[in-house]
Amino acid sequence: MRTVTTDTITQAFIDYIGAETDERVRFVVTKLVEHIHDFARETNLTHDEWRKGLELLYAAGEISTPERNEFVLFSDVLGLSSIVDMINSPDTGTPSSVLGPFHVLGAPDLPVGGDMKRDNDGDLIVVGGTVTSTDGKPIEGAVLEIWQTADNGLYSGQDEDQPEYNLRARMTTGADGRYLFSTVRPAPYTVPEDGPVGELLRATGRHPWRPSHLHFIAVAEGYRQLVTEVFPSDDQYLDEDAVFGVREKLVMDYEERTRTDDLPDDLEIKDRIDGPYYKVDFDFVLAPLEA
Amino acid sequence: MRTVTTDTITQAFIDYIGAETDERVRFVVTKLVEHIHDFARETNLTHDEWRKGLELLYAAGEISTPERNEFVLFSDVLGLSSIVDMINSPDTGTPSSVLGPFHVLGAPDLPVGGDMKRDNDGDLIVVGGTVTSTDGKPIEGAVLEIWQTADNGLYSGQDEDQPEYNLRARMTTGADGRYLFSTVRPAPYTVPEDGPVGELLRATGRHPWRPSHLHFIAVAEGYRQLVTEVFPSDDQYLDEDAVFGVREKLVMDYEERTRTDDLPDDLEIKDRIDGPYYKVDFDFVLAPLEA
Repeated sequence: MRTVTTDTITQAFIDYIGAETDERVRFVVTKLVEHIHDFARETNLTHDEWRKGLELLYAAGEISTPERNEFVLFSDVLGLSSIVDMINSPDTGTPSSVLGPFHVLGAPDLPVGGDMKRDNDGDLIVVGGTVTSTDGKPIEGAVLEIWQTADNGLYSGQDEDQPEYNLRARMTTGADGRYLFSTVRPAPYTVPEDGPVGELLRATGRHPWRPSHLHFIAVAEGYRQLVTEVFPSDDQYLDEDAVFGVREKLVMDYEERTRTDDLPDDLEIKDRIDGPYYKVDFDFVLAPLEA
Repeated sequence: MRTVTTDTITQAFIDYIGAETDERVRFVVTKLVEHIHDFARETNLTHDEWRKGLELLYAAGEISTPERNEFVLFSDVLGLSSIVDMINSPDTGTPSSVLGPFHVLGAPDLPVGGDMKRDNDGDLIVVGGTVTSTDGKPIEGAVLEIWQTADNGLYSGQDEDQPEYNLRARMTTGADGRYLFSTVRPAPYTVPEDGPVGELLRATGRHPWRPSHLHFIAVAEGYRQLVTEVFPSDDQYLDEDAVFGVREKLVMDYEERTRTDDLPDDLEIKDRIDGPYYKVDFDFVLAPLEA
């Protein structure tokens, strides 16, 4: 197309796409460009604003490493990561939430009822429940990957003072589908704000805080993998998570307990815990894979 | 907002924007996020597609340098650079076109009628016309920055075999608003395709070619700066410029001449040229600055 104008350029782009192009690629790229062009037209985007956007992307490239990906962080604080999670979450079962950048492979196995708190300072919490199918049947052999911050809001891997795999574990359910562990109460923390994402947050009057949360990945044969987070109902940032990860069904009370009556009799956790603690009940419901 | 869903997340983002935020920033960022969210919702974007997009951005960061900015190149091949140019171009006067990454400051002065071809191989062309205001009056003291590729499709700065400032010049008009210079016919060339932009072009069945062109920046006191390009009407890539720079009014015939009758009598160019050449007539019309 020769006579490109603001009105015809979008069709010109579409016409450029080759006949042999994968249909899904054609669809996604076309939609992307339609939205980019509409954005520019609807805002009458100036050269200065265009340059500013390109500068933020260039700065994101400069600050990114395999361990700290500023493009993922942009996706997080703009809500894109969360929307993609929700779009791809099954309608049934426990809602998914954002994976975040702090998951690592290789965390040690912890038996049901085991302790992940160890020497960590902070409030003791006991987290437990069941892993079931959407029909209510317990799932045996479901594997939970668990990770969280220490009391200072940092993950092992971010914090030189924490041992490797601190507050990270892998737990496999038995025939009853039950999981249970003691740990420390995680803390709210800020997403990194020393790069262009921080600049965007400041320019739009936003804080970088996330409510405290426990991360989980639940995997079981025959079921869709679930990546999710569990939040305490009294966290001050619950209604303003910087990365839009909170879902109503993922918010749980941290119930204060002074007695251990409701800890299961058949596990050593009952003998181990003798002081006050907070109880967090959360059940995972996994959606079966489509046949 | 606590109960974030695919339907409510866009409003949640908007509600996060601080009350003190600059109104233009609020408007542009809101529009950006509305389009990003709509894009994800309308495509049911998968995690794999989301990851692929983030990988392309990360790769763009890795390959970018101050001299080779892959984000600008993405903007170019997606048509964003061109649409921003057109949005910000005045309705009157010569249309603008993309600046591109190859302009450098400091090109030597060349008098009206001077030669920029020097020792460059290739077809001789003579480019000339007037710089006038939209009311038709010649503009005295208008400065044209001129740059172009050599016959091999490379700019000086890209090509070690070319001297510094080869095929780059700065020409100032006299009272008649006239400009004129001899040079070599520029060649079509490809945008860099060794990075993620190349991957996108291949995935969508697109070639990386630009039609050959002469670059100009026209500056005159009291007028809007004009950044533009002039294309030959017989270029094979005219209808499929990889960066959407072609405008109908910027396409000119390269007219073959065997006689020098229509070269001006008052300039030494008439004595200098004795063989066949191509004549390119192009007039610049500058829009006055708003009062």
